[in-house]
Amino acid sequence: MKKTLLLWVLVAVPALAGEGKWTPQQVLELDPAWLKAQGLQVPPKRLWDPKRGTGLLAGAVNVGGCSGAFISATGLVITNHHCIFSIVQEHSSPQRDLITQGFLATSREAELPGKGSRIQVPRSFTDVTKEVLAAVSSGADDLARHQAIERKQKELVAACEKRPATRCQVSTFDGGVQYVLVDSVELRDVRLVYAPPRAVGEFGGEEDNWMWPRHSGDFAIIRAYTAPDGSSAPYSPQNVHFKAEFFFPLATQGVKPGDFVMVLGYPGITFRALLAEEMAQRQARLYPRIIDLYGESIRILEEEGEKDPAGKIAVASTLKSLQNRHKNAEGQLAGLKRGRIIEKQREAEEAVARWVEKSGKAPEALRARSELLSRLKDTDKTWEREFLLGNLRASARGLSMAVTLARLARERAKPDLEREPEFMDREQQRLKDQLEREQKNLFLPAEKRLFQAFVRRALALGPEERLAAVDKHFGPKATEKEVAAKVDALYAGTKLLTLSERLAMFGESEAQLAARKDPLLAFGLELATEVSALDELKDRREGTASRLRPEWRRAVLAHAGKPVAPDANSTLRVTFGKVLGYSPRDGVFNTPQTTLAGVLAKHTGAEPFDVPDKLLATAEAKKLGKWVDRTLKDVPVNFLADVDTTGGNSGSPAVNGKGELVGVNFDRVWENVANDFGYNPEVARNVNVDVRYVLWMLDQVEDADALLRELGVRKGPPVAREAR
Amino acid sequence: MKKTLLLWVLVAVPALAGEGKWTPQQVLELDPAWLKAQGLQVPPKRLWDPKRGTGLLAGAVNVGGCSGAFISATGLVITNHHCIFSIVQEHSSPQRDLITQGFLATSREAELPGKGSRIQVPRSFTDVTKEVLAAVSSGADDLARHQAIERKQKELVAACEKRPATRCQVSTFDGGVQYVLVDSVELRDVRLVYAPPRAVGEFGGEEDNWMWPRHSGDFAIIRAYTAPDGSSAPYSPQNVHFKAEFFFPLATQGVKPGDFVMVLGYPGITFRALLAEEMAQRQARLYPRIIDLYGESIRILEEEGEKDPAGKIAVASTLKSLQNRHKNAEGQLAGLKRGRIIEKQREAEEAVARWVEKSGKAPEALRARSELLSRLKDTDKTWEREFLLGNLRASARGLSMAVTLARLARERAKPDLEREPEFMDREQQRLKDQLEREQKNLFLPAEKRLFQAFVRRALALGPEERLAAVDKHFGPKATEKEVAAKVDALYAGTKLLTLSERLAMFGESEAQLAARKDPLLAFGLELATEVSALDELKDRREGTASRLRPEWRRAVLAHAGKPVAPDANSTLRVTFGKVLGYSPRDGVFNTPQTTLAGVLAKHTGAEPFDVPDKLLATAEAKKLGKWVDRTLKDVPVNFLADVDTTGGNSGSPAVNGKGELVGVNFDRVWENVANDFGYNPEVARNVNVDVRYVLWMLDQVEDADALLRELGVRKGPPVAREAR
Repeated sequence: MKKTLLLWVLVAVPALAGEGKWTPQQVLELDPAWLKAQGLQVPPKRLWDPKRGTGLLAGAVNVGGCSGAFISATGLVITNHHCIFSIVQEHSSPQRDLITQGFLATSREAELPGKGSRIQVPRSFTDVTKEVLAAVSSGADDLARHQAIERKQKELVAACEKRPATRCQVSTFDGGVQYVLVDSVELRDVRLVYAPPRAVGEFGGEEDNWMWPRHSGDFAIIRAYTAPDGSSAPYSPQNVHFKAEFFFPLATQGVKPGDFVMVLGYPGITFRALLAEEMAQRQARLYPRIIDLYGESIRILEEEGEKDPAGKIAVASTLKSLQNRHKNAEGQLAGLKRGRIIEKQREAEEAVARWVEKSGKAPEALRARSELLSRLKDTDKTWEREFLLGNLRASARGLSMAVTLARLARERAKPDLEREPEFMDREQQRLKDQLEREQKNLFLPAEKRLFQAFVRRALALGPEERLAAVDKHFGPKATEKEVAAKVDALYAGTKLLTLSERLAMFGESEAQLAARKDPLLAFGLELATEVSALDELKDRREGTASRLRPEWRRAVLAHAGKPVAPDANSTLRVTFGKVLGYSPRDGVFNTPQTTLAGVLAKHTGAEPFDVPDKLLATAEAKKLGKWVDRTLKDVPVNFLADVDTTGGNSGSPAVNGKGELVGVNFDRVWENVANDFGYNPEVARNVNVDVRYVLWMLDQVEDADALLRELGVRKGPPVAREAR
Repeated sequence: MKKTLLLWVLVAVPALAGEGKWTPQQVLELDPAWLKAQGLQVPPKRLWDPKRGTGLLAGAVNVGGCSGAFISATGLVITNHHCIFSIVQEHSSPQRDLITQGFLATSREAELPGKGSRIQVPRSFTDVTKEVLAAVSSGADDLARHQAIERKQKELVAACEKRPATRCQVSTFDGGVQYVLVDSVELRDVRLVYAPPRAVGEFGGEEDNWMWPRHSGDFAIIRAYTAPDGSSAPYSPQNVHFKAEFFFPLATQGVKPGDFVMVLGYPGITFRALLAEEMAQRQARLYPRIIDLYGESIRILEEEGEKDPAGKIAVASTLKSLQNRHKNAEGQLAGLKRGRIIEKQREAEEAVARWVEKSGKAPEALRARSELLSRLKDTDKTWEREFLLGNLRASARGLSMAVTLARLARERAKPDLEREPEFMDREQQRLKDQLEREQKNLFLPAEKRLFQAFVRRALALGPEERLAAVDKHFGPKATEKEVAAKVDALYAGTKLLTLSERLAMFGESEAQLAARKDPLLAFGLELATEVSALDELKDRREGTASRLRPEWRRAVLAHAGKPVAPDANSTLRVTFGKVLGYSPRDGVFNTPQTTLAGVLAKHTGAEPFDVPDKLLATAEAKKLGKWVDRTLKDVPVNFLADVDTTGGNSGSPAVNGKGELVGVNFDRVWENVANDFGYNPEVARNVNVDVRYVLWMLDQVEDADALLRELGVRKGPPVAREAR
């Protein structure tokens, strides 16, 4: 009786249990009794072995910026459909439209290798704070400080990457309180095993994006291969499956409301350690301007796409990405307001400040905070200019490619260790692939209008924020008509939009590029000098922050007196929570599970609600197999949990207390977008594909019996209906 | 323990308990044990005394087409804000804007009389089926049959209305299975006591209409007066308050989820006794055409209103009414599909048919059904023509007023008992008031475009459906331009839009009207002959239906073998249900109560979400008085129940098992619009103002202490927060 009561309280009381993207090391610092009470059944030391620097948590892997999880000892990995979409796209043709039809490999040989697809499996995490900080010479100014830190990081990475097939990074925690060298094995032979039809994987499309209720089958299964000796190797028919030491068996019984879940993965970036005033600047300037700029680009792409079916296809991918950021920005603003996040941060800061004053400890913290605030004010003057230069991706592809090629040429003239990190040798292939991939996104009428919009915005900048390249080329008082004519001329004279020409430009020096007399390239070279100047300003600023922020953060951590999860920084994290609905507004409760019946109810036969006939027939015939939830009396499709996720967690495994996979994370709800700034337990919900929807698809829709056997799943007879 | 379990089952199991708009007589036929189990605590005989033909149910009164309820022995009546809006409007001026500010009478003398406002209190219900049917001579054809029935009804009404201040009607139940003479006292001195500001009464406006979650304070309080001797009398300062024998004291403790409620009132019209094929015709033709025609009119009014602020005000009331019907039609279509209502009706019909065949009872039922179906097919041929003539209200006001005046002239030439009911002497004042009120709705640019749209639709009719008046005046092949020019000429030449002229036309004979040589009136006279011809066709059809439908319905009722609530027909009904949320779609549950916090969350400061400063300040200061719900920890605003309501139930009291008022019904949810055709327990929810919102407004916002005392409400100290 006592036990039942305890569980009830845990489920019912909106505690902050879900808050925190914990590092593997921190899991061992959390109270094991608390973890057990949350629902963790495996011992914490199985999650992480600090001596080896690995453990069950490392069953979660990095899949090209997404997360994923081993689900078999034979190298099978589950992730999101949208994370491996490029592999499906690569193997699709009008004759064999895998995008529409989905793909199931009927044998090992039939699995489809993904060009450039990579999986990183963490091997070890090493604290390198002392080494990094020791590199800063006393008396260094902030720019020198930044350069010394960055150089040290590059050296550590270079040394680490001397091992074959190794990918390393030095990650900064809490603004510089800690630096950690992350050493990962990079598996380079990755093959597609199963992808659902796009209409399942992206069911609901942009309309449902960030939304609940949700009914997406956003999952896919890939497999990692190695050389026969177990070492990482590029694709070869002789390769054998990766032997995963840690993996998550599928929990065929699924989850129910109130159940414990943990979500593991590689959350990208969050901003909870920012000062309230820094958050306020983002609220007041950044998100409104994103809504403005991206909104304009979206309108242009939509309008131009409407005029030409081929154009519509070309701009689709860019459009989707812009819409995603645009909706995100709106969500940040709504969530900051709803959760009173900035006000709460201000109150928390004041509490720390009072504690510092009262205790006399860490007086440097207040000076640091005060200097950070004064530096923040400095950024106001040229904020619009920096925003415009920093968001070329929302503008014409030709413009951003020209600037990229020009910057690459400038940076390649320097020794590798002195370059901006994204232009170092280890990034060259990635950059080249990206310039190649852009080809399919090009659509000239949209290009030109986006370029004109950029020029219009640049010409409208204040006197202290002028972009010399724009003033010079277009004239500071150019009319719309003059701008349009000059943009036409740029595109008429350039070869940048021709793939072979562009690839030839890749790696040329500034002089070689200039000698081409390509007008668009010439404009890019001029604009690149302004971008590079900005780089230096930013480097100096980062030096300042790396000096000041740790001083402030150490006071915050000391005041807390217990483990505080650091902001996301693309390193491995785990978050603990439970399956739980929420109230998006007064009079409405979003229940934590959706079902197959909901898929059918949304199905209109038109995008984005158009499930394939095969699924429709199976569902309508009530062929549900053993994947029916006893309470819901239907196959569960998606579920909500109050875990703490962000971008980068796409494809993260949702795991039960026994270490079994119960779902795959793929989104957050709209009300929870602003959790990047602070965890609001009332609305902090992520969205997961229920593993039983995965199993139902594989079993009843796809008849993927071999794959199910490999996953250790027994299809079995349908579960008998419970007596009422 | 056993009792608790029983209650739980009742609350949890989605039974059809809520179905049925029961007549007072039927309440006595229901199982008293079942009623008690539902939650009715007063004995059923207190609800209705069949000998007297009255009872507690008659505490629910008819307020000009709406419902209302006595809430004190001193004649106070609560109803919806939108039901008494015309009184507020009548007393409003730019200097004293009661619409915006609301109104609270500070003394009896300050109460505002409503011109033409009427309250009908039911006095008795008498079965007159035998008399009505005896009037039909054997061998009468269907037209003669209808005329005989209608004439008999008129005679019964005329005899009944010989008593002073009496309003009578003969109501048809189940298509003619039963005819009942309803005798009501008409109270003619009705005064406004309290109306909230429009921003409270209509909070959410068109955007929230038919929706949940809802936060409207759609209630108002009026008082009925009589002559000092207790007889009904028109307004006089000497009048005294009506002494209500039956009334519903306010339940200051409110309701909670699962609580029993009954809703009493005058539901207008429903269609559940229609044959499935008759429903299917409405689904296939009527609602799509309403969406089309009303949608066009809405667009015209919106576009023209945008061009002129005065025009916007003029068209606002018409627009609101069209939008309401348009949204309703969409809801009917969605609900018919969602609830599979027509399929279920077809299945139910087949069951009755099998029972008839098997039992050998009532073979005439199948013949009747078959003839009804064949007559239904006949209506297809001229369906579009009838629809157009039947929906002049969605067209130009000038057009419909011209036709009304012309028809009035034609009908007044006949003896009173032979006229179409709406043109009888007893309706003259109502008609005249209506023609007067139209003045404020007139806006010439919208008029002309609506008229043109009508002509365009008429010209597009098939060869069997021509409107001679339109063909003659405009020419069967008139171009848009020609139509526009001729419509301009009609309006340039008419005096119909001048109020004094129009009132002078009221009551003139056809010859007098024709002698005016008013072009719009002339067109109306011609069109009226076609409308009158249609009247005869409809009368004949009704004669057929009155002959056939009772034969079919008697079989349906016999097959049911238990009381079946008849379709709504504007007579007094009661429906029993409970406070209950619902799932509008997979993954979402609409909780059954909303709160003041939800009002604040919706408040944007712009219409339709702009609560008055006074309310805002009171709410933000947490001055909640004793009206806080202990579970919600806030003042409840609206609640849902699974009772069975429709239009006409506006203002109906929601009453608890003890006969106390817990709320005021004002709407249904969107998913429940199609319950006019069949009760779907999953979504059948009405929307009520919680009595505690009423009390909070009166107590904390308005300081209406005298009124609260009169209502027997003790303000008392705030309720202490419960210990957790």
